[in-house]
This record gives sequence, structure tokens and C-alpha cells, in this order.
Amino acid sequence: MILITNDDGIVAPGIRALVEVASKFGEVIVVAPDSPQSGQGHAITINQPLKLRKVNIFPGIDSYECSGTPVDCVKLAKNVLMKDKKIDLCLSGINHGANASINIIYSGTMSAAMEASLEKIDSIGFSLLDMSFDADFSAAKHYAEKIINSVLKNPMNGCKLLNVNIPSGKLEDINGIKVCRQGDGTWIEEFQEGTDPRGEKYYWLTGKFVSFEPEHMDDHDIIALKSKYVSVVPSNHDLTHHTAIKDFKYMETL
Amino acid sequence: MILITNDDGIVAPGIRALVEVASKFGEVIVVAPDSPQSGQGHAITINQPLKLRKVNIFPGIDSYECSGTPVDCVKLAKNVLMKDKKIDLCLSGINHGANASINIIYSGTMSAAMEASLEKIDSIGFSLLDMSFDADFSAAKHYAEKIINSVLKNPMNGCKLLNVNIPSGKLEDINGIKVCRQGDGTWIEEFQEGTDPRGEKYYWLTGKFVSFEPEHMDDHDIIALKSKYVSVVPSNHDLTHHTAIKDFKYMETL
Repeated sequence: MILITNDDGIVAPGIRALVEVASKFGEVIVVAPDSPQSGQGHAITINQPLKLRKVNIFPGIDSYECSGTPVDCVKLAKNVLMKDKKIDLCLSGINHGANASINIIYSGTMSAAMEASLEKIDSIGFSLLDMSFDADFSAAKHYAEKIINSVLKNPMNGCKLLNVNIPSGKLEDINGIKVCRQGDGTWIEEFQEGTDPRGEKYYWLTGKFVSFEPEHMDDHDIIALKSKYVSVVPSNHDLTHHTAIKDFKYMETL
Repeated sequence: MILITNDDGIVAPGIRALVEVASKFGEVIVVAPDSPQSGQGHAITINQPLKLRKVNIFPGIDSYECSGTPVDCVKLAKNVLMKDKKIDLCLSGINHGANASINIIYSGTMSAAMEASLEKIDSIGFSLLDMSFDADFSAAKHYAEKIINSVLKNPMNGCKLLNVNIPSGKLEDINGIKVCRQGDGTWIEEFQEGTDPRGEKYYWLTGKFVSFEPEHMDDHDIIALKSKYVSVVPSNHDLTHHTAIKDFKYMETL
């Protein structure tokens, strides 16, 4: 069974594209948010109950909309809807907009996939570098099909999470796939300031992404995407900075 | 300047404890959520504006409450309130409840600290293994003071983020500090089901944490805390599974 979720909400064209591709490979269940949840990261709903409603929007496919976050959707799928069944693969997306570099940590799409990977389920998040609602998903579907097919044939071993980003544009403009590391960067100029109808000041998040990567580095997702390659970053939930453990050992004598 | 935030909200006793400790070391600014934000992970507020309000709850210390998530608080501090000033250290917490092992990814406390570390600011998240509102923070304050003091004397190099968890109980019951890796585990039995006043079914997140770590492993935070040590995990925002890159290189030929 293939579980599909996203963060743009169950009616987004991107999840429809992913359902179309995935249903070629076997039985699919969709559990996705009932409203857009971009930027929700790994948020979970603790202080209020969640609702789950069966909906009929993908012909022949069991589909549920959930009042919670993308991670809540995966938790409900695993623990309630699929309690006694095996999830072979979790797919999240196809996201409207990039989740490369550090954007993996803000992304509801990637956090949903990570949540499934925590449960030792092979998981892939797909994102298209086009934020528009009517984005062209044809190239993304082409590569998603190749990657899903290969993961079903060669189940993931050890690493259970892939972050896949697809350049915008037509299929013939894409140069192939690069398997690479997460590039480093940050967001700058982050707030638009304004005044609300009651005269109170507000701040609205905006900004642009800048890479921290030196020009000569070519092994990361930022440069892969810039060069019109699909980026595939094997990812995980271990946030330990392993090589730094020795640098802080002195604290054991404080 | 030391920036302080949390995820339990600006009136939580834990942030007051941290303000008391940090203000011994220099000028402090507090920017924290105006409501509890536990489990918000790395969520950011994209689709609505944020409010920031100056409040007077810590004598002599500039303090602001924010309508957003913990990560929003750090972004507003960095880009609006401290736009032309240097933040030397970001402290988050002291959280009411553990953020060891995989809980780092669900934690608003740790995500706020990570957001500052993305900006190359030395950042530490502190969590006490006691979820109660009236928890005893005296041992946590003792260790927070030692760790803050040592980081100010030995600025972090390369690794900019520490995840510090403190066992509950009295100072004399704690055996010291262990610098270690993030232990692996998951949450099981996760939902309480019920019926709301309108007769609709709901699901409410609950569950218990289980460790995936084998008995003989003693280099991770789960066992350190169980053995009544303060755990310090050097952490980072690079989610790449570096050793797995070679395993997926075959995808470049798809």
C-alpha cells in the first residue's frame, strides 16, 4: 500500500499528479490536509482534537482529508486508518514550490515524509520549483514515476527518506538526476511591514533565499537545480553534529 | 546581546528561569510567543501577518510577545528588533518537558534555537524533563548557568546548536553532564478517540515514547537522561544522510 500526503491541501493539483503516478504501481491511500499547510514544518496538533473525513475526489482511491498538519496526516494514517496494514511507501507532494537546501526544515511536505521514515517506511517528498496553482507537473510526473519505480524495485536500506526537487519547465529542458547533499543557505530581508485596519503595526513574512555555498562546490542540491537537474538528497532525522561531539566533551567536566 | 525565546509562551515559568540565569551574563532581549506553541516544530507563519507587542514582565529587560510560532519569534528578533545589532547568543526554553531523541524535530523550543543557528548565531535549547507548570527549575538553572558561561568563554566553532536536556529532580540527584548523540526512537499508541458534542468522531494525539536503541549503547541522550545526567547533543540543520549518497547514485542513470 502506498500512502500519499502533501502540505498544499488535498485539492492541490500537485497531489493529484502524484496520485496519478503512484496508482500505476499499486493500491493507494490518500490522507492529506483539508487546507493549505505550507511552512508548517514538523508541527503536530497537541492541544485540540483532529477530524478525519472520507472524501471522494480521486476515482477509485480511498481518500481522507484531515483537519491537522501534514505530520498529523501521517500519524493518523499509520495509527488509525492503516493500524493493521503495512504501508510500503509514503509519498508526499508534489509540492508547489522548492524544498531544496534548508527549506526541508520549514516544509510540511518533507516533514510528512520524514514522519513516515521515522516509522521505518520508505518515504519520498517531491517538490516542483513552481509555486503557481496551475504549474505544469508533466516533467515532475515523469521523474516521480522513474524514482518511485526504482525505489519499489530496490527498497531503501538504512536511509529511509529522499528529498526530490524538480526544476520548473518542460521535460526536454531537464538534464537528468543528481544525487547530492543538502546545500547550505538562508533567507534574508524577511518581513514586509504594514498597518492593519485598526491602526496596529504588522509584520508579514517574505524574503529571498541566498546560498552560503562557495562557487566551486558542485555536490549539493542548490547547484544541481540551477543546472536544471532533478536533485535527490538522501535525508534523515538524526540532527546530531557527530564530528562536533568531541569539541564539546570538555563540558563533561563543568 | 542574548536573545531568549521559548515555545511554552512568554508567561511560562521556564522562560523566567532562563531570563534570570542569562541576565547574569549581559544584556538580554526576550521575544517569545503570546500563547503556548508546543509541538510547533519548525513552523513559520506565511499566510497571515504577525503582531509584536512590547510587554513589561521581566524587570529591566526588553521583552516582546509575538503572535506567531517560536521560529517566527527568532525571525522577528533578527530581522526587525535587532536588525542593526549583533545577537551573540540565542537561548530557548527552559522547556517544560523533554526534547531529547527525535523530539528535537517536533519541538518549537529546539526549532527556535535551530533558526538562530542557521544565522550562524551560537544557540542553545534547554529542556527540563518535567511537564508541569510548577516544575522545580533549580537544577536546570544550575546547569544552564554552567553551560552558558562556558559557551560565552569558548564560542562555538562550526557547530552552532546544542540540545540540552536536564533530568527532573533535585540538583544533588544529577550525576553531571554527558555530551552525546541523539538517540533513536519513536512514539507509539498515538491517538485517543472520542465523540464531540455534535456526534462527530475525533482523534486526539497522545502516546508514549519508545527507544530504538539497543541495551548496550551508552553514547546517546536517552540513556544519559535515564542515568540522571544532563544530556548535551551538538546538533545541526544538515539533514543529509551523507553515507547513503553513494547508495542512491544509481538513480543518476534512470
